[in-house]
Amino acid sequence: MSLQSFFHPKSVAVIGASRQKGKVGFEMLTNLIAGGYRGKIFPVNPKSEEIEGLKCYPDLASIGETPDLVIIIVPAPFVPAVLEECGRIRVKSAIIITAGFKEVGPEGKKLEEEVVKIAKRAGIRFIGPNCLGLIAPSHRLNASFGGDLPVPGSIGYISQSGALLAAILDLANATGIGFSSLVSIGNKADIDELDIIKAFGVQKETKVIAGYLESITDGDGFVREAEDISNRKPILLMKSGSTTAGAKAASSHTGSLAGGEVAYESAFHRAGVIRCNSIKEQFDFAQAFANQPLPQGPSVAVITNAGGPGIMAADAIEEQGLTFAKLADETIQKLVQNLPAAANTRNPVDVLGDALADRYEFALNVVLDDPNVHSVLVLLTPQAMTQGKETAEAVVRIARKKGKPVLACFLGAVKVDEGVQVLRRGNVPQYDSPESAVATLKVMVDYVRWRNRPKRVVRLFSVNRRKVESIVERHLRQGQLDIGEAEAKDIIEAYGFATPKGSIATTADQAANIAQQLGYPVVLKIWSPDILHKSDVGGVKVGLKSEQEVKDAFDLMMYRIPKKRPDANILGVLVQEMVRTSGKEVIIGMHRDPHFGPLMMFGMGGIMVEVLKDVAFYLAPLTAEEAKQMLVNTKTYHVLKGVRGQEGVDIDAIAEGLQRVSQLVTEFPEIKEMDINPFVVGAPGATPIAVDARISLEKKG
Amino acid sequence: MSLQSFFHPKSVAVIGASRQKGKVGFEMLTNLIAGGYRGKIFPVNPKSEEIEGLKCYPDLASIGETPDLVIIIVPAPFVPAVLEECGRIRVKSAIIITAGFKEVGPEGKKLEEEVVKIAKRAGIRFIGPNCLGLIAPSHRLNASFGGDLPVPGSIGYISQSGALLAAILDLANATGIGFSSLVSIGNKADIDELDIIKAFGVQKETKVIAGYLESITDGDGFVREAEDISNRKPILLMKSGSTTAGAKAASSHTGSLAGGEVAYESAFHRAGVIRCNSIKEQFDFAQAFANQPLPQGPSVAVITNAGGPGIMAADAIEEQGLTFAKLADETIQKLVQNLPAAANTRNPVDVLGDALADRYEFALNVVLDDPNVHSVLVLLTPQAMTQGKETAEAVVRIARKKGKPVLACFLGAVKVDEGVQVLRRGNVPQYDSPESAVATLKVMVDYVRWRNRPKRVVRLFSVNRRKVESIVERHLRQGQLDIGEAEAKDIIEAYGFATPKGSIATTADQAANIAQQLGYPVVLKIWSPDILHKSDVGGVKVGLKSEQEVKDAFDLMMYRIPKKRPDANILGVLVQEMVRTSGKEVIIGMHRDPHFGPLMMFGMGGIMVEVLKDVAFYLAPLTAEEAKQMLVNTKTYHVLKGVRGQEGVDIDAIAEGLQRVSQLVTEFPEIKEMDINPFVVGAPGATPIAVDARISLEKKG
Repeated sequence: MSLQSFFHPKSVAVIGASRQKGKVGFEMLTNLIAGGYRGKIFPVNPKSEEIEGLKCYPDLASIGETPDLVIIIVPAPFVPAVLEECGRIRVKSAIIITAGFKEVGPEGKKLEEEVVKIAKRAGIRFIGPNCLGLIAPSHRLNASFGGDLPVPGSIGYISQSGALLAAILDLANATGIGFSSLVSIGNKADIDELDIIKAFGVQKETKVIAGYLESITDGDGFVREAEDISNRKPILLMKSGSTTAGAKAASSHTGSLAGGEVAYESAFHRAGVIRCNSIKEQFDFAQAFANQPLPQGPSVAVITNAGGPGIMAADAIEEQGLTFAKLADETIQKLVQNLPAAANTRNPVDVLGDALADRYEFALNVVLDDPNVHSVLVLLTPQAMTQGKETAEAVVRIARKKGKPVLACFLGAVKVDEGVQVLRRGNVPQYDSPESAVATLKVMVDYVRWRNRPKRVVRLFSVNRRKVESIVERHLRQGQLDIGEAEAKDIIEAYGFATPKGSIATTADQAANIAQQLGYPVVLKIWSPDILHKSDVGGVKVGLKSEQEVKDAFDLMMYRIPKKRPDANILGVLVQEMVRTSGKEVIIGMHRDPHFGPLMMFGMGGIMVEVLKDVAFYLAPLTAEEAKQMLVNTKTYHVLKGVRGQEGVDIDAIAEGLQRVSQLVTEFPEIKEMDINPFVVGAPGATPIAVDARISLEKKG
Repeated sequence: MSLQSFFHPKSVAVIGASRQKGKVGFEMLTNLIAGGYRGKIFPVNPKSEEIEGLKCYPDLASIGETPDLVIIIVPAPFVPAVLEECGRIRVKSAIIITAGFKEVGPEGKKLEEEVVKIAKRAGIRFIGPNCLGLIAPSHRLNASFGGDLPVPGSIGYISQSGALLAAILDLANATGIGFSSLVSIGNKADIDELDIIKAFGVQKETKVIAGYLESITDGDGFVREAEDISNRKPILLMKSGSTTAGAKAASSHTGSLAGGEVAYESAFHRAGVIRCNSIKEQFDFAQAFANQPLPQGPSVAVITNAGGPGIMAADAIEEQGLTFAKLADETIQKLVQNLPAAANTRNPVDVLGDALADRYEFALNVVLDDPNVHSVLVLLTPQAMTQGKETAEAVVRIARKKGKPVLACFLGAVKVDEGVQVLRRGNVPQYDSPESAVATLKVMVDYVRWRNRPKRVVRLFSVNRRKVESIVERHLRQGQLDIGEAEAKDIIEAYGFATPKGSIATTADQAANIAQQLGYPVVLKIWSPDILHKSDVGGVKVGLKSEQEVKDAFDLMMYRIPKKRPDANILGVLVQEMVRTSGKEVIIGMHRDPHFGPLMMFGMGGIMVEVLKDVAFYLAPLTAEEAKQMLVNTKTYHVLKGVRGQEGVDIDAIAEGLQRVSQLVTEFPEIKEMDINPFVVGAPGATPIAVDARISLEKKG
């Protein structure tokens, strides 16, 4: 859906237009007029005959034609009636500016629901309520009371905070940043962030999508659509309110490590969305994406007229993990031949404090032609002879020709102001510090890398889905949401995992018999649906080597544990073959995020997870590359690969385990949370063993 | 030393003053005059009789009195002669602006050395050469060619880059940031950063010291003096060029983890210096320190007229590890009684979009009185009714009265400009985003915490210093800089460490005999000065339980290792008692930084150090608190304290070990590098064992 009639309406009605200065109904109308909107404008207000030279209508029906877009500013209680009126003359698009809905409490929420119902019935799509409106500079449409129309540009902006949008607009108008559109989505009762992002996705004039969000309504849809759009246009989002959400984490292992924040990060990562931490950062990034070509690699060259800032840039490039370009011999020769002897002809190229524009022009030209250089950062400090304006003109001229990104950082204020204006008009982004410019190059390089990622192919393993279906259905039917260890293992076995053999014993003799059949050594584990962390109560005893040891361990558990946990229903003791621990213990987990669905987790067992929180998250379903990447993203990857003489373990086996769990939780949305812990993995080729598994369900629909 | 005559001279001579516009000699003189300098100005130039209305002298002697300060602008080859002239009339202070010295190569370096020699002989202190000059706004002294005189303020600035200083000056003049002084130190051939920092330390008008440095000449002195000054005035430094330096790390364990960057971090940490990563950040911090009281705790309250920015501030507060203030009941009641019903009376206090100045004033007043609140951040977005200017006036008025820091973030540009000007003039720092304001509060809170740190008391252990002296002296005399394992252990034993017993065997039978005496199990280690990492060549065999095992292990080493390392001189095999490994293995290390001296290192053995680089560094000598803090600073501290059922180890024993090594390396500056690895530490009370030690020496000046 393009929401065409919102951004480019042929006519606009303003219901609640007012003659009274300071009133929103006045501001809206005068903004529309002042912006130079070329379509018809119909003020609607029964109390006026004319406002600002325009004929005013008592109601929508008296206009005599159907406006493309209706802006509603009447007090909240009147909004339902106005919408009914809209429906009668077949209005299709509305913006409800009026506040006093969901945001004020239960009463308002009811009113908002009523509005949604009316709109749906009448086939009206609407933005708001409780919003600032919409601005589309290239169509000279300022349907907002947020500020003056900014210059047309290629950034599409969406904001869940009206006040923030007003601040951004003010900032943009001061610095000349251009926008294709700006939308304040308010309570997003109908049209939400995803609708707008999709509209921006197909809008020709929008090359960069940016926004501020506090929540995402449809997580699944967001990831799908944003991933698709990110392939063509970068999406830059600020997302706030993440820390408090993070605190409400679930209690189990996986849960406690995967708060809402992690889900957002994973979703943004999957969708290629670039996360911004402040307005400043967002506009630093946006102006580069909007105005410069994408870098074809990580190599950055720096041209400067002073040593200090050059060093600062070099530090930043190294710290950001970009490459400090090594100039080709040919480039260096040209620089040596044409720059003064004292100039530094290596990166950072120092054209010296007395450089005029021509020296910058020459150096930039040569450096941009160097095949080892993917992008150039031009630094300038205002010195005695510095030509800020002329240098900026030269930078603009050359940058246009070469197809590589050129960013500028003219340090200072008054003395570089003229130059900065030239850069802005010439679409060369200007930064207030070398660090901000380099941070921008970093996200550009990362974005290109994301765009060039391999196609996502999710492997489907042949599994016994039926078996899992029957276990899950029975548990849900019986309202039993935690699946016991034995059946949890049946489930993962059905999805191709090997688990240790074993059975439940209810007497010491029985335990010894089972041990005899399994062969020594064995493990004993207390068997109770009420005890989640068995080792905390002394409920795990490993390495038992004889009948006597098994019997002793059994009796001790039966004597001690009921004292520690009198509440627990103890069903017996699991006697299990002992998995050779020559391998490494890892954890494969999943936690279903309410917005974004199954979030896979990988971590190495023991302190690496518990103390160091060295874990990786990815949204399911996982491709083979993503599963592998999860391992690589942990610091412990080196340990798994083998360090200092220690043999490595079967990395591919872990990646496959992750993919199998990913398939399981994708095929069974009833699984709310699960982990395989430990998943013991040995040398390449050896079968990994899922020693323990926990699975819990939730009712769907 | 106050360098009084530099900042507040009664008369200034400009040698090389010029009538010609564009020349540095003209700029300097006109800047002096334009700044309104109230002392006498003596232009010196044999070719002119008068410049800019001032009498011009052919040489210094003809002035007839001794100028307090002499500024030298003549070409480099003439500088020595001019300095001689200065000496003759007993000039005490000079600024050498002239370039063409050390920075242009060996010739220039020679010239610079000559200049230093002359100055020393004549008792002249000088700034430069190759610098931009010095500015002292409160004395209306602009002895620079960097730009116009900024407004007087309380920030003292020092820069190793002249160009950067010019940019800062330009920025300051555009935004009205005030300075007490600005100094460009150039090649710092005589007066260096430490001299200036010390001068700022005693300067009444300087409340905050800030600067940009590329190197520090006297590391030891810097740490000592800066620590002293930081107790009274915050020092905010940008330090660049750290990444390349970091790459040149030494090859051993300790070395490879402790590059120059780590030494700088440790030195800044010890000295309470606040590290800044960009000019913007530096001025964000500086304006708060210069204009606001220090926060007495970490609790931040936020007042806003819009939800979005309030959430962004809350996120930032939590992310920075500050406390999101919980308002007292009384405060909330007052807010509820006086703010509209829709206002949020919890933190962040939302005074709503239609708030006028009075509502802000009321809320700020009440919130600042709350004992739970240590600082307040006032956010404002420009909405329809917003009174930017009046709100700013109210904020300034109240902030002045309460003795708690108040920071502001008025978002936008044109619409908030008037308000921002009022804030600036009223000394309430204004930030471009909630994030920058919160980052500033964070460094203020950290600084207060640093100032309130316990007094540093270094414990002196009773040790056998003589013994170490004799070993070290003998090694140095023989030019043998690596101390062998046996004597390295003698050294640490002399400083109170327990080491495992053992002797060297040269035959299998001898090995078995030694093992017999020590008692089984034993460890065998190859004994060669040429093999640093014994286990890499199979030169360590642990847990040998019988005569036969010892003999086999001995013979296998003697057969295999010479094949792997034919170059190595193998002296035998060390047979050692086996240390019970029930404890944890940690590493205590030291690496002597060329600038800052002994840098202590602590890390947990194995993957924690090798893979995760989970290590902590501190400059020696260590206090007990600092040694403890080193442990706490590692992620593995939790592991040492004991996690999930595992018993913890003797934390104090490790801290004591760190202090003992700290004492050793402080008393023996000849020790260049050492580590005790592993240092095996058990349950509280058990004696920890230094299993292995490496010590290497360096010749001292």
